[in-house]
Amino acid sequence: MDATPETTADSVLAEFAAGICRRMAEGLLEHTGGELRSFLSAESARLQAALADPATLEPAEQPHDPPRFSRKGHVVINTNPVTSHRNVLAPLLTEKLEDDRAVATVGPLPRQYQGPRGMLHGGYVGVLLDQVLWDVVFHRLGHASFTRTLNLTYESPVPLGEELTVEGRVTKIDGRKTFAEGELRSGDTVCARAEGLWVSPR
Amino acid sequence: MDATPETTADSVLAEFAAGICRRMAEGLLEHTGGELRSFLSAESARLQAALADPATLEPAEQPHDPPRFSRKGHVVINTNPVTSHRNVLAPLLTEKLEDDRAVATVGPLPRQYQGPRGMLHGGYVGVLLDQVLWDVVFHRLGHASFTRTLNLTYESPVPLGEELTVEGRVTKIDGRKTFAEGELRSGDTVCARAEGLWVSPR
Repeated sequence: MDATPETTADSVLAEFAAGICRRMAEGLLEHTGGELRSFLSAESARLQAALADPATLEPAEQPHDPPRFSRKGHVVINTNPVTSHRNVLAPLLTEKLEDDRAVATVGPLPRQYQGPRGMLHGGYVGVLLDQVLWDVVFHRLGHASFTRTLNLTYESPVPLGEELTVEGRVTKIDGRKTFAEGELRSGDTVCARAEGLWVSPR
Repeated sequence: MDATPETTADSVLAEFAAGICRRMAEGLLEHTGGELRSFLSAESARLQAALADPATLEPAEQPHDPPRFSRKGHVVINTNPVTSHRNVLAPLLTEKLEDDRAVATVGPLPRQYQGPRGMLHGGYVGVLLDQVLWDVVFHRLGHASFTRTLNLTYESPVPLGEELTVEGRVTKIDGRKTFAEGELRSGDTVCARAEGLWVSPR
């Protein structure tokens, strides 16, 4: 096994490729016909150019999510589908964790997250709240726990075109049970609320 | 405006490109370093070859989700992030709807949906249940309604490597309120349950 899972330049290239896939995912839902072909050709050419000569990428850039080694010496890639820059699916939350509270910002989100026209898909509203509540529970306890329930209430549609704030708070700890709640806001509007129960492993 | 939003060949090409992005999304989480560069080069070359000469794609193939025209004459692309073959994010449910019941199959799901190691991210468990319950409510009522609540209970981790079944049932209709419930299964194991309330527009 190599001393490092990959070079920094390769990690930067991997995240660049994930970014190209995100742009393609958006373009596939924004364009049709010849316009789409041109768009895909241009993005694909950008990727091939970077693969042929990684030095064309900003050399000072640092990867957000480089692979690391586990305690057992295995290479571990951050696969998280909400936060990892290497995962094409991830809307890329920026999160601050403090004691019993997490506050994350995300968006504006592109078309691939659309449910109703111009609005975030309800399932992905849940994805954002699930992640932030899990994170605040993890941060408070210092270890991973299992999500047992997540109850979502949708107050109003979530606009794709706006930056969103997702907040989570630990409200109670009772033995192996941890309770948390939170909400997703667009500006001052609370669009969705969540509350749930997390259970620590024995 | 053209008579059609794009040719059938272009729609097939678009879904092929979405498939390449899905494969890249998976590869970015499976490979590192030189192996990843080779993988991305090969996928990128496949896309460029198809863009240069769409006839290299299977000519008899029909697109799953070609753009269509709305009643007002606008081109509408199916952006659904769970079901549309044109959306890179979509795990691509196959769904059967009958009266008050929907049964969908999905997977095995690739690495980009991973939460705990080898398991589906809890937020995406919710995505699958949200979509199937929304669909069965829509099918029963014949019109769209707003998800008001979705309560998820996680019984056991959902393996990525298995085909999954997602079932939804309408349980009660009371004026503008429609109640539904369902579960996600891996084989005979119920991994997660959902129940919720949908409200019809006035």
